[in-house]
Amino acid sequence: MRMRKLKWAKAFIDSSESVVKLPETHKGNWHETLNRKTIHVEIGTGKGDYWLGMANLYPDVAWIGIEKNESIAALALRKVVFPQAHVRFIYGDAALLEEWFAPQEIDVLHLNFSDPWPKRRTAKRRLSNERFIEKYYQLLHDDGEIQMKSDNRSLFEYSLLEFQNGGFKLIELSLDYRSETHDEDVISEYERKFMEHGPIYRAVWKKHQVKE
Amino acid sequence: MRMRKLKWAKAFIDSSESVVKLPETHKGNWHETLNRKTIHVEIGTGKGDYWLGMANLYPDVAWIGIEKNESIAALALRKVVFPQAHVRFIYGDAALLEEWFAPQEIDVLHLNFSDPWPKRRTAKRRLSNERFIEKYYQLLHDDGEIQMKSDNRSLFEYSLLEFQNGGFKLIELSLDYRSETHDEDVISEYERKFMEHGPIYRAVWKKHQVKE
Repeated sequence: MRMRKLKWAKAFIDSSESVVKLPETHKGNWHETLNRKTIHVEIGTGKGDYWLGMANLYPDVAWIGIEKNESIAALALRKVVFPQAHVRFIYGDAALLEEWFAPQEIDVLHLNFSDPWPKRRTAKRRLSNERFIEKYYQLLHDDGEIQMKSDNRSLFEYSLLEFQNGGFKLIELSLDYRSETHDEDVISEYERKFMEHGPIYRAVWKKHQVKE
Repeated sequence: MRMRKLKWAKAFIDSSESVVKLPETHKGNWHETLNRKTIHVEIGTGKGDYWLGMANLYPDVAWIGIEKNESIAALALRKVVFPQAHVRFIYGDAALLEEWFAPQEIDVLHLNFSDPWPKRRTAKRRLSNERFIEKYYQLLHDDGEIQMKSDNRSLFEYSLLEFQNGGFKLIELSLDYRSETHDEDVISEYERKFMEHGPIYRAVWKKHQVKE
């Protein structure tokens, strides 16, 4: 998502109570800190509809949103009506994920409409590149899962191959997720826009018992 | 594909030189019999456009088409202009596959627009049901591959899960195969009809080194 820089973004993020200022200080203690048995992490919240919508729908679990774009992070945080202890935000780059989380600390990881980085030379930046998948494998609980949605066919095809090769097992798949009714999964404004133009793809993976 | 029974079908199949009358007698000897290093098998030829089209495009490999519906088999065979030794047809049910082929004897297995058997209680009849996948695993060469195309979303989703769980590794995937140019792969009349209504899905699998 490209947009012009918002001048107020930096100050707004700094002042937001939902933002975890030094996430590395919670490494290994997120469950206790957030007082929840299950930790959901969304990498790339965009404007935050999914992160906040899901946190609203499932208050019994913790929801940590991550976004590296300053202006977009600020727009997401502006949607927080009142801060809640189990709804947290990390303004930063997911490349640092293992500085913030300990092995097996994440229960459910969400990737929604991630940047497709369509050119081959930028494939390494895709959130389903093997470089990231290795991190997810380490940080995800052995019974945890990764949930991905995308409107981008090439990214989704790529992801199915990469997750398989990274030791993950596909357990759910829909090649037209919104043609079915899924009230359990929040539709963001961003997703609604794409639903009009083609199918929404969705996959869920778990770790293989033994990594290959 | 449902159609009314053709009265002339039985006699036509019996008289066709392309039909292998007792396929079990060639078990373990197909490469020698057909005088080709590579054996392609298509299960469910339908009216035979793909089977014959591909045999025409790739005369250096053997093409064995299988169809269990008498009338449809006859329609496929009627398209044979002149019989060729490396283009063979088996009129029969793929449930008998291991009576006809020895372990590792098939190099490439094709599943094109297979019957989706949409109801759960008939899932066992799908050609990507685990019952069939076990057979394919036995009969496919260790370096062989399975190529599947379908216009049916549910069948394709199901197949991606079943092949993964049956010890196969996804190596190619397209969720809109005909939006790309693939002159190397024949488009049957049947496929062309479906292309107008939605995407053609395609996957290629190889055996995992070690079956899980």
